[in-house]
Amino acid sequence: MAEKHRSWWGWGDIEDAVTGAEATALVNRVRTLLPDADLTEHVAPPVAELGLRLPRVDPPASLVRLCSTDPGDRAAHTHGKAFRDVVRNLHGDVHDPPDLVIRPATEQDVVDVLDWCAGRGVAVIPYGGGSSVVGGVEPRLDGRYPAVVSLDLGCLDRVLEVDETSRAARIQAGVFGPALEDQLQRHDLTLRHFPQSFEFSTLGGWLATRASGHYATVLTHIDDLVESLRVVTPAGISQSRRLPGSGAGPAPDRLFLGSEGTLGVITEAWMRLQQRPRWRADAAVHFTDYDTAVAATRAIAQAGLYPSNCRLLDPAEALLNAGAATTGGVLVLGFESADHPVTPWLDRAVELCCDHGGALPEPPRGDDSSGPRQRTAAAEAWRSAFLRMPYQRDALAARSMIVETFETACTWDRFSALRAAVLAAAGDALRTVGATGVVTCRFTHVYPDGPAPYFGVYATGRWGATVNQWDQIKHAVSDALLAAGGTITHHHAVGRDHRPWYDRQRPDPVALALRAAKSAVDPSWILNPGVLVDPAS
Amino acid sequence: MAEKHRSWWGWGDIEDAVTGAEATALVNRVRTLLPDADLTEHVAPPVAELGLRLPRVDPPASLVRLCSTDPGDRAAHTHGKAFRDVVRNLHGDVHDPPDLVIRPATEQDVVDVLDWCAGRGVAVIPYGGGSSVVGGVEPRLDGRYPAVVSLDLGCLDRVLEVDETSRAARIQAGVFGPALEDQLQRHDLTLRHFPQSFEFSTLGGWLATRASGHYATVLTHIDDLVESLRVVTPAGISQSRRLPGSGAGPAPDRLFLGSEGTLGVITEAWMRLQQRPRWRADAAVHFTDYDTAVAATRAIAQAGLYPSNCRLLDPAEALLNAGAATTGGVLVLGFESADHPVTPWLDRAVELCCDHGGALPEPPRGDDSSGPRQRTAAAEAWRSAFLRMPYQRDALAARSMIVETFETACTWDRFSALRAAVLAAAGDALRTVGATGVVTCRFTHVYPDGPAPYFGVYATGRWGATVNQWDQIKHAVSDALLAAGGTITHHHAVGRDHRPWYDRQRPDPVALALRAAKSAVDPSWILNPGVLVDPAS
Repeated sequence: MAEKHRSWWGWGDIEDAVTGAEATALVNRVRTLLPDADLTEHVAPPVAELGLRLPRVDPPASLVRLCSTDPGDRAAHTHGKAFRDVVRNLHGDVHDPPDLVIRPATEQDVVDVLDWCAGRGVAVIPYGGGSSVVGGVEPRLDGRYPAVVSLDLGCLDRVLEVDETSRAARIQAGVFGPALEDQLQRHDLTLRHFPQSFEFSTLGGWLATRASGHYATVLTHIDDLVESLRVVTPAGISQSRRLPGSGAGPAPDRLFLGSEGTLGVITEAWMRLQQRPRWRADAAVHFTDYDTAVAATRAIAQAGLYPSNCRLLDPAEALLNAGAATTGGVLVLGFESADHPVTPWLDRAVELCCDHGGALPEPPRGDDSSGPRQRTAAAEAWRSAFLRMPYQRDALAARSMIVETFETACTWDRFSALRAAVLAAAGDALRTVGATGVVTCRFTHVYPDGPAPYFGVYATGRWGATVNQWDQIKHAVSDALLAAGGTITHHHAVGRDHRPWYDRQRPDPVALALRAAKSAVDPSWILNPGVLVDPAS
Repeated sequence: MAEKHRSWWGWGDIEDAVTGAEATALVNRVRTLLPDADLTEHVAPPVAELGLRLPRVDPPASLVRLCSTDPGDRAAHTHGKAFRDVVRNLHGDVHDPPDLVIRPATEQDVVDVLDWCAGRGVAVIPYGGGSSVVGGVEPRLDGRYPAVVSLDLGCLDRVLEVDETSRAARIQAGVFGPALEDQLQRHDLTLRHFPQSFEFSTLGGWLATRASGHYATVLTHIDDLVESLRVVTPAGISQSRRLPGSGAGPAPDRLFLGSEGTLGVITEAWMRLQQRPRWRADAAVHFTDYDTAVAATRAIAQAGLYPSNCRLLDPAEALLNAGAATTGGVLVLGFESADHPVTPWLDRAVELCCDHGGALPEPPRGDDSSGPRQRTAAAEAWRSAFLRMPYQRDALAARSMIVETFETACTWDRFSALRAAVLAAAGDALRTVGATGVVTCRFTHVYPDGPAPYFGVYATGRWGATVNQWDQIKHAVSDALLAAGGTITHHHAVGRDHRPWYDRQRPDPVALALRAAKSAVDPSWILNPGVLVDPAS
C-alpha cells in the first residue's frame, strides 16, 4: 500500500480527499437539490502561511526526544474535525496552536510529561486521533495558561495481552481502529466498535468520550465493553481490576469514561471482545407513515430481540442517503451472531414491522441451511460509503456548504415532539442566517425506553460566514433539544462546544462532585482546561 | 391476609419464622449431614431486656411527628440482616442503636432532617428495608458523632407516574418489592428485579447498593434499569434527566449508584420496566465433570443468547439445595419473553451443553405451538423455597450453626484457581475455628468475560462463638478472593464489613476522587460515616 499522509486541515488522509469524478458527481447531486448554491471550491492555505504563534515554552532536555514543534504538526493538533474546525482551517484561522506536540513512547513518559506540566502550570490536552467534533482537543484557553501541550498518544498503539478464554485484551490507548482490529484478527477476535471515525480515532479517545459504535442495541457505548482501565492522573496511576461485573462502590471506571481528558490520561484498557460474526440476517422495511415507523421501531426495541442494526431513516434521510423514496421512512434491520443462525430473530422483527404496516420491497436476507452468509456486496458498499462521508463533508465545506450533524437521545414518549421542535428550530435558524437546505433524521441506536436520533443539516452558506451561520443553527437546535427533554449529546461528547448546554443538563450536586474530584486528582487543573468543568470562581 | 409483624432480631415477619414441622425437618436434614452438631434452639431476648442506651438527642419540634424512640424500633434499626447481625441480636448484643428512627413523609422532610443533622453534626444512616448483609445500616461510629439517626424511607412508597410508551415509571425510593410490583401490575408492567431480599428490601436500597436481581445476563444489576435518579444531598437536590442513553460527561447516576448512602439520600428514580413474560423455556442439565460444566456455561454466556437464568450449581450445591446427585453439577437454564416463543434460544443453549457432555434427565420444557406456558409448579416451589432461605438461616443460626454466604465475580480464565483457593481457604479456616461443614458454589450471574460465583457455608459452631468463628472464616475467604483476582462483592455491597478489602481493591486516585466528591456534597460528613470512604486523616 502506498504511504499516505494525514491532512492537517481536513478529515483523514490527503490522498483520499474527494477529487475528480467523485467531486463532480457530488457537486452535481447538490446542484440538483440546491440549484442556487455557489459551489466554488476553496482550498486551505499552506501551513507556512498560517503565521503560527511561536512556541512559548521549551521542553526540558529529558523530554525533547518526544516533542515536536513542527508547524504542520502543531496546526494539525489545533482543531478537531467538526465542520467549524475544517472551515476555520480552510480560512487559515489557526490562532491558538499547542506550543508543543508531545508523543510519549511509554507510560512513564506520560507520567513525566504530566509532572513537568504540573510543575510549570502548563495545560495538557490528551490527544488520540483528533477526531473530536465538539472542540474537545482545541487549546481554547483564553490566556489562562502560559503554554499548552497536545499529548498525542499515537505511539502507544499495541495490543499487549489477549485472554482468549474470557475474550478480552489489554490494549494501549493510542491505537487506531484499523491497527487494533489487525492485531486482534490473529486471535480471531474483534472489538467490533466501529464509529464513523473508526479509521482516524483511537481506543483512548473512544473511552474518554464514551463513544458509541456498531451495535444499535445493548452494547451501544464503548462503556459496556470495558473490563478495566489504567489511567495516569497527576495524583498517581489508577488501575482498576479486571472484572466482568462488580457492586463494590460506585463503578470506578465510570468516573473516567466520559471524563474527556480532564481527570487523567487513559493509557491502557482491558476490553471485552467478540468472535467475528458468521451468521447474519437483514432486511430493509419501508413505511408510508413515519409515526407508525417509529412505533414499529419501538416495538422491536422493546421485544428483547437485540438487533445489531436497527436504524430508522426518516423520509428525507432515506431519500438523501439511501436513495429510497418513501413517505414514512426506511427501517434498516440487521442481526448477527458468531454462534447461531439468526433468522428466527429477524423473522420476528420483520413480523413486528408488518404488524405496523411496514413493507419489504426485497425479501429479508438471512442464513440458510447451507451455512452462514458472508457480508453482502451491498453491505460492503454501505460501509465504505459510511466511511467516505467525512471526506465528502470536507469537499462540501470547501464549497461554502453548511454540512454538519448533531445527535441526542430521549424517551419514546417525547420523541415526536422533540423531532418536531428540532426541525422547526433548525428551519427557523436556517432562514435567519439566510441559508437554504434540508434537515434529516435517523436513529443510530435504540433502547427499550427511547431512541438516539441523529440529525443531518445540508444547506447553502456564504463563504466566509458558514462558521457563524452554523454556530447560530447549532445554538438554536441545542436549545430545542434540551427544552424537549433530550441530552446535549448521545455519543459526540461535550468538549468545549457543548459546555453551555451540558452545564444546564448536569445536576448541580454532580457538578460540585466532579469539580472536587478533579481538584483531587489534578490539583493544578492542567488537564484539558475548559472541558466539562471549571474551578470554583 | 392477617396482619404480620416484622421481627426486630431476624429476617422478615415474626409470623413466618421457621417453626413446628418445618423446623423439625430442617433440624433432621442437618443432623443427617452433621451428626455431631448441637442443635439446641436459642431465642432472642425481649427488647425490654436489651438495656438500650437512651437517645442522646432530642429532635426539634418541627420533626417530632416523624421521629420514633421506641426501643423495638431502635433495636430493629441497629443491625442489618447478615448472619453476624442475627446472632448478635440473639445474644442481645445491641450496643449502638440509633438515637432516633426518623420516617420522612415527604422529600422536604428528608431535606429538613439533613439540614438539622448537618447543623448538629448528627450522623444519618439512610435505611430502606434494613436487609444489608455488610453492616451498611449499622451505627458503628466509635463515638465520633454526638448522635445518630436512622432515616427510614419506608413511607415514600408510591409509584408516582407511569410512562407506558417508554415503559418506565417514577417511583419513590422507600417502596418494598411486593408493593412496587403491586402498583405496576395494574399497568401490566414489572420491574422484574427479584433479589432474595425482595420482600424486605426497597428500591432505594437496591439502587444505593447496586443490587442484582432476576436476570442472569445483560440486565444483571439494578444500575442498568435506571433511567434517572433524584437524590437529596446536604448540598442540594440532584435530579438527572430521563434518558435512555447519553454520553454527556461521566454518567451522573453512576456516582450515586453504589454510593451506599454516603453521598445523598435517593428519594425517587425513573426505572425501566418490562412487560410480564408470557413465553418461557427452561432446562436442567447434569454434568459429570465440573470443569466441563463451567466450559459449557461459558459457551452459553459468550453465545449472545441472553438467558434470563443460567445458574451453574457445583456438585455440593446441587446436592444440598436441588437434591441432585451429580459429579459435575447442574446447570439451570431459563429463557423468557413477553414478545415471542423462546424455544430456538433454549434449543441452542441445550445444544451447547450437549456438545460439552451435558445430559438432560428430563426433556427441556418450552412453549409449544398452542401458546405460552405458565410458570410451572416446580418453578413456583423453587421461588418460594428461595424466599424461605433467610428464615431457615435464622432457624439454624439460633441452633449454633454457621450459615452464611459470600460472593464475587472474576474473569473466566481465573475462575478455576479462584474457586480452588476459596474452598481451600474456607476449609482451612473451618478447621482453625473448630467447625465442621460444607462449602458450596453456584453462579448467580454470568457475563461473556466471567461468572459471578456465590458461595454458601453451612457448618457446626459453638454457641456464643459463632460470630467470631464466622468473622475468621470471612476474613480468610475475603483475602483469598482478592488474591485470586475477584471483587470483594458482586452485589452484596461494601458497607462496613467489606471496607478493608474494598480499600485494597479500589484504585487510589478513585479513592481520592470519591473522598473529594463526598466532601463537596456532604461537607459535614454526616451521611453513613464509615461506609466506603473516610475523611482525610
